[in-house]
Amino acid sequence: MRLMRFGERLGKKTPCVMDEDGNARDVSSIVDDFGPKTLSPELINTLQAVDLSTLPIFDTSEKRIAPPTAQPLNIWCVGLNYSDHAAEAGMDIPKEPILFNKSTATYCGPMDDIFYSSKMTKLDWEVELGIVIGKTTLDITADEAMDHIAGFVVVNDVSERAWQIERGGQWVKGKSFPNFCPTGPLLVTPDSIDDVQSLTMSLDVNGERMQSGNTNKMIFDVKTIVSYMSEFCQLEAGDLICTGTPPGVGMGKKPPKYLKIGDVVNLEIQNLGSQRQKVVAYKKEAL
Amino acid sequence: MRLMRFGERLGKKTPCVMDEDGNARDVSSIVDDFGPKTLSPELINTLQAVDLSTLPIFDTSEKRIAPPTAQPLNIWCVGLNYSDHAAEAGMDIPKEPILFNKSTATYCGPMDDIFYSSKMTKLDWEVELGIVIGKTTLDITADEAMDHIAGFVVVNDVSERAWQIERGGQWVKGKSFPNFCPTGPLLVTPDSIDDVQSLTMSLDVNGERMQSGNTNKMIFDVKTIVSYMSEFCQLEAGDLICTGTPPGVGMGKKPPKYLKIGDVVNLEIQNLGSQRQKVVAYKKEAL
Repeated sequence: MRLMRFGERLGKKTPCVMDEDGNARDVSSIVDDFGPKTLSPELINTLQAVDLSTLPIFDTSEKRIAPPTAQPLNIWCVGLNYSDHAAEAGMDIPKEPILFNKSTATYCGPMDDIFYSSKMTKLDWEVELGIVIGKTTLDITADEAMDHIAGFVVVNDVSERAWQIERGGQWVKGKSFPNFCPTGPLLVTPDSIDDVQSLTMSLDVNGERMQSGNTNKMIFDVKTIVSYMSEFCQLEAGDLICTGTPPGVGMGKKPPKYLKIGDVVNLEIQNLGSQRQKVVAYKKEAL
Repeated sequence: MRLMRFGERLGKKTPCVMDEDGNARDVSSIVDDFGPKTLSPELINTLQAVDLSTLPIFDTSEKRIAPPTAQPLNIWCVGLNYSDHAAEAGMDIPKEPILFNKSTATYCGPMDDIFYSSKMTKLDWEVELGIVIGKTTLDITADEAMDHIAGFVVVNDVSERAWQIERGGQWVKGKSFPNFCPTGPLLVTPDSIDDVQSLTMSLDVNGERMQSGNTNKMIFDVKTIVSYMSEFCQLEAGDLICTGTPPGVGMGKKPPKYLKIGDVVNLEIQNLGSQRQKVVAYKKEAL
């Protein structure tokens, strides 16, 4: 099953399930919204049992694509989780998953603009497979992990490298500016993906291929990540976990290559859809 | 003005303003709850204009003290922000504030139990002054900071040091177990504190004084922290910022001293009230 939401940032969202013909079927008669307050295995079961042809087709033209679930209570990231990306970053392959956070205020839709603040100097991209948690998760095994996952999404883990690395400890500082977490367009449930550890992924800047990878190159796979994290923290429905990026980030280019105003970023993951963002000047007054 | 909330973890909370006689005046006729959705300068002004004697006294006996605002969208921490604590941790004094996060699922009341999981080995304490943000904050000066603050709270930034330091990069891993963020009891608005940079603070374990300090020893003061953070991220109403801990954490003792099941932790900050937690065995079934 493939879920989407439409609507302006501050407005009411329309939750939809995509039918086989690619129509967005409005499910707001069944659930008010998809998000931390409503996501559950029961909701997924209910939606999967619905005859979509009985539901209204939502006219998506001219509509903003919102992230496929409402703002999470936590956005987690796994660092250096592709061995070839660790190599380009000049870092050792981690022995255990490296965890850090993005501010939840970074969360935005897959086509929303990336903001370039005048204090930025090394604005970078990272295509990532995102895990959306489906129910409260604490102290579980890897075998139990898939039952705790609502679905998978495309994420651009936008990063300002100077803030991340040159401004004193801990990566969150370079991961948290508004709109640094474009998410979606689709939330795809686990049963609709043959093998989440075998998905191609790519990212282009101004039409030039920068990243290409496959989730089969993850050092720690999806099940291991969720089980591992559940030792240290309680994950909640709607929590987003970004699982790391393949090689080809701007910081790893020789010479390094960073985003500037006017650039266009396109990214996609097999089965999960594609994103497109423009880089625009951040103006305080506009927010 | 001093705000409090009462009620069970999963139940409806009763928001109260404390009157001069120490009575909790129920303000739920004015606002549904204190939290990210309701905190604003306008709400604070409205509450300050109320004649509290006209409002019902809430019977607080036998009631759980909840954190004074609802679960934030982000919990931020400033690391090593007391020069004498940096020394005991064997770390250099930071040139810029070090930022990291705690999971928002750590958030709990000031008297709630601390959970000890069987995988923990170095469970530690940290009394901290917490800042609660009062409205959306991005790109502001230090002079503007106090207008963006709803109030101040006591926080115990509970930490598992082995997870924080010995398990691979980034501190959040040791800061995020459930109930690792007892907060409250009071939210005290800035106008009710003479000088937030001159508050005594202390923490005892089983009646023995472990930490004593004063907010005048902060390397980066409250205004600087909020302004500095607003360069890198957008803070939202209800966001909690823990501003660092004075010396005396368990990790800094010679030899180190950590919490065990049955220990009782008491902590307080001048004008902001006191907390008390028992350390109990975490049982998966109980959550």
